[in-house]
Amino acid sequence: MATATNTAPSSITFETSPQHYHHWKLDFDGPIATLSMDVQEDAGLSPDYRLKLNSYDLGVDIELADAIQRLRFEHPEIHAVVITSLKERIFCAGANIFMLRGSSHALKVNFCKFTNETRLAIEDASQNSGLKFLAALNGICAGGGYELALACDEIYLVDDGNSAVSLPETPLLGVLPGTGGLTRVVDKRRVRRDLADFFGTTAEGIRGKRAVEWRLVDAVYPTSQFKDRVAKRAQELAAQSDRASAGQGITLGPLNPQVSDDGIAYSAVRVEIDRDKRVATLTVRGPEGEQPSTPDAIIAAGDEYWPLRAFRELDDALLRLRLNEPAIGTVVVKTAGDASAVLGVDDTLLAHQGHWLVREILHFMKRTLKRMDLTSRSFFAVIEPGSCFAGSLLELALAADRSYMLNDPDQPNTIALSGINGGPLPMSNGLTRLHTRFLGDPERVNGLLTEEEPFEADQALEAGLVSFAPDELDWEDEVRLAVESRAAFSPDALTGMEANLRFAGPETMETKIFGRLTAWQNWIFIRPNAVGEHGALTAYGTQKRPEFDFNRT
Amino acid sequence: MATATNTAPSSITFETSPQHYHHWKLDFDGPIATLSMDVQEDAGLSPDYRLKLNSYDLGVDIELADAIQRLRFEHPEIHAVVITSLKERIFCAGANIFMLRGSSHALKVNFCKFTNETRLAIEDASQNSGLKFLAALNGICAGGGYELALACDEIYLVDDGNSAVSLPETPLLGVLPGTGGLTRVVDKRRVRRDLADFFGTTAEGIRGKRAVEWRLVDAVYPTSQFKDRVAKRAQELAAQSDRASAGQGITLGPLNPQVSDDGIAYSAVRVEIDRDKRVATLTVRGPEGEQPSTPDAIIAAGDEYWPLRAFRELDDALLRLRLNEPAIGTVVVKTAGDASAVLGVDDTLLAHQGHWLVREILHFMKRTLKRMDLTSRSFFAVIEPGSCFAGSLLELALAADRSYMLNDPDQPNTIALSGINGGPLPMSNGLTRLHTRFLGDPERVNGLLTEEEPFEADQALEAGLVSFAPDELDWEDEVRLAVESRAAFSPDALTGMEANLRFAGPETMETKIFGRLTAWQNWIFIRPNAVGEHGALTAYGTQKRPEFDFNRT
Repeated sequence: MATATNTAPSSITFETSPQHYHHWKLDFDGPIATLSMDVQEDAGLSPDYRLKLNSYDLGVDIELADAIQRLRFEHPEIHAVVITSLKERIFCAGANIFMLRGSSHALKVNFCKFTNETRLAIEDASQNSGLKFLAALNGICAGGGYELALACDEIYLVDDGNSAVSLPETPLLGVLPGTGGLTRVVDKRRVRRDLADFFGTTAEGIRGKRAVEWRLVDAVYPTSQFKDRVAKRAQELAAQSDRASAGQGITLGPLNPQVSDDGIAYSAVRVEIDRDKRVATLTVRGPEGEQPSTPDAIIAAGDEYWPLRAFRELDDALLRLRLNEPAIGTVVVKTAGDASAVLGVDDTLLAHQGHWLVREILHFMKRTLKRMDLTSRSFFAVIEPGSCFAGSLLELALAADRSYMLNDPDQPNTIALSGINGGPLPMSNGLTRLHTRFLGDPERVNGLLTEEEPFEADQALEAGLVSFAPDELDWEDEVRLAVESRAAFSPDALTGMEANLRFAGPETMETKIFGRLTAWQNWIFIRPNAVGEHGALTAYGTQKRPEFDFNRT
Repeated sequence: MATATNTAPSSITFETSPQHYHHWKLDFDGPIATLSMDVQEDAGLSPDYRLKLNSYDLGVDIELADAIQRLRFEHPEIHAVVITSLKERIFCAGANIFMLRGSSHALKVNFCKFTNETRLAIEDASQNSGLKFLAALNGICAGGGYELALACDEIYLVDDGNSAVSLPETPLLGVLPGTGGLTRVVDKRRVRRDLADFFGTTAEGIRGKRAVEWRLVDAVYPTSQFKDRVAKRAQELAAQSDRASAGQGITLGPLNPQVSDDGIAYSAVRVEIDRDKRVATLTVRGPEGEQPSTPDAIIAAGDEYWPLRAFRELDDALLRLRLNEPAIGTVVVKTAGDASAVLGVDDTLLAHQGHWLVREILHFMKRTLKRMDLTSRSFFAVIEPGSCFAGSLLELALAADRSYMLNDPDQPNTIALSGINGGPLPMSNGLTRLHTRFLGDPERVNGLLTEEEPFEADQALEAGLVSFAPDELDWEDEVRLAVESRAAFSPDALTGMEANLRFAGPETMETKIFGRLTAWQNWIFIRPNAVGEHGALTAYGTQKRPEFDFNRT
């Protein structure tokens, strides 16, 4: 009855480091870093397109994400970041159209999701790490280029009579500025909606004084003053940072996973893939051996410190599943190890959350769990004896669409909460997963958080912390049937259902980007008016003009 | 370069009245109304399907919307409404699948939009008119049937060992419960997301005690007690109502528009259609002659009272444009008449907003303007001499995507605010259009609202109340070019862009339904896994099983 791609598609990897960058240059000057875009035309992820005019593909954005991440962990001395371009008269032309046109629907969607996460990571660094970002637009800034600028705290545009900011997606390509552009224009920069409407339908964009009056940029400066004004403002921003001017950072070394056709093995994370069933089993192992308990010891452990290591591996595994394993619809989430060791690490993190590195680790764990919330696969947590769903690792079960916990009196099996479930790892709706889970009974959250004892299966069920707790007679069948029946449903309907059920409660700019904006963009990305034979995305850059079915939907 | 449907499609009309209902029965007993669903199988809008098992099409929902509306205006004595079914052992099977399958994408989307608005009108009546709604589920309640129940304040289910509530869209049809179901389950009823996940993938639904424990219904009662318990609870709800037990209501008579191939003419609203340009001009005329100034006089004027009449006509015109004129992409919005007369009506409404009928009129104006916000057409307000964009009619310009105001010193042309712009007509984000417009400058709103003088074009531009104010030399060309260039863009990209730019600021359950949920449903509604040759919606009710492309997006 059903068809599936049974082969592993070509693999994309997400690790890089500055010495391997093709497209960005990272310079340091005291508390200021400058991240300069200089896209190498012939170094795209695919040879099918050339990355002209500082246009980008996923590979360019992977480097950007890596740079932001390293600034946080490796460079605590940096307090402000200038994002600019090394090309003459061009800042960035946005996502490469020919790349988009040649991408499958799923790749388009996942490309946008990753670039959105990267821009949100910039805002997260500004909000939570005292790293202020300044977009220095030294030339034309179009589409995704302007969306990158919108993610920065301040935007400065050169006033050379030519350089403009623009969102030409709608008029030129028949799609949306889907990397947060529409949302940030009206919700972050608070551009008036009628001006935003004009801006979003004017391919040539807006420049000069009008760009300032409409709030699209913070200021324009003549070419002769541009560098100095930007440098001065970067110094001012750096001076406002709350980053401790700590000494040296830690180094984020390579993860070196073992990748085979049926899985990926990291040090603390393992992914096993069953292609016939379209199921992956993702297992996170808890910490082993003695763990550092002071900031100095954590710095000494560096990227080998368990929570950083395990969540970096988890992050990498999620990205590989998204991009490289589209046919794997369900992920069974397991943990293995000593729950008290996880809780011990949580205690250390909480005790030192004011320390710059601990702060970075916690925010990174938060971002990784958000990545899980936004991954369009069904997650079922399976809680068995020998697991360690406690504190920070319990978040994996709370992030899952469902959880199953074995209830067998003969085999001890518990879950446990820690203070880390009560605040430091909020979802993109601004609430913890516990608060989101118990929107209907907010009092319960405080009660649960004061519970010091672990929960047996029947207690966990009663407390609402797990979905189901079958006994040993039903366990295997119930879990197997749940996973099997999930695999038979329409993957699109599941994606839509999960995207709605996972984000109860308040909407934030972040959830608006992933909910409202992304959902509309996904719709448009499969409409004939964009991607059909005569669609605008298909016609762009050819001799043909687009032909539309003008009926409104 | 472009194609368009140039002919008027078959027309759907939106007016009805209880004596013409095919599918609902409306009974009154003191302060309680009972609205009973009894769908007539062979009275669907199209002969291509039969409305079995209380399944519904747009025609059934038009009657429901009419009933809710009449309860508010014609029956101020009603304080609680029981929604139930006259069919044995079945409450409602949801939207008719065969109707959905046979509908174009645009019709599916507009069907869902209208049914969503109707369910929100139920919640609006509960929240703002003291009309409490009780869903009495006397049998199977599936899909859209349960979504209707979710719009009610309380849900009671018969406990007969068989009757269940369910959202079988995902497991059976490969689509979403798109009429607010997913959102209301987790955001209104606050069902835990993991339980909602199980519920949303379990075609047979949940019944009995579990349905109560999971918060899906408020109580279950055995068949023998069901009627009595429901009646008792309805009396309790009615007793809590803040509706004044006023005497009789007013009658909402037929609008009797003159419909021709190139337009619709009502008493105060006129729509002129230019099919070649794909543009409609919608003109609202202000009040003429003496207007009632007391509640008694307003009751005496009844449905002829200008604001009620004009907004009923506007509402009808918007619905006809949506369903019957899909190729009309741009609507030029004009007004004609005496601005001071509009402001006079506004003053009367504000002075008596505590009166039940005035309250209903204001909430209806609010809902009509929300209907405009949610109409996927580009609205350009054109403000010329002789117009009356003042107070409540200024909302039309504020709701528009852009506004153009002629700046000709030789021809007086002003706009004006009234207290009505400051509160009574909020958007679905909970803010007024003025507050949403000036999110970046909230102080300005208070200043504007205290301004008693009308605004000339240059003042209006300076105040940010209009988008552009060309002088008499540029006026014609600028407006014409704006309208013409709009008509050339991809209609899908415009729909997506407008859906994002119009709703800056907070998201509410209402905007979540129209943003996140609807956008995802629209995506799924054109995916091959739902509507392709082997999609689940296509295969449902046939001998074939669906075949999916299992790759996740």
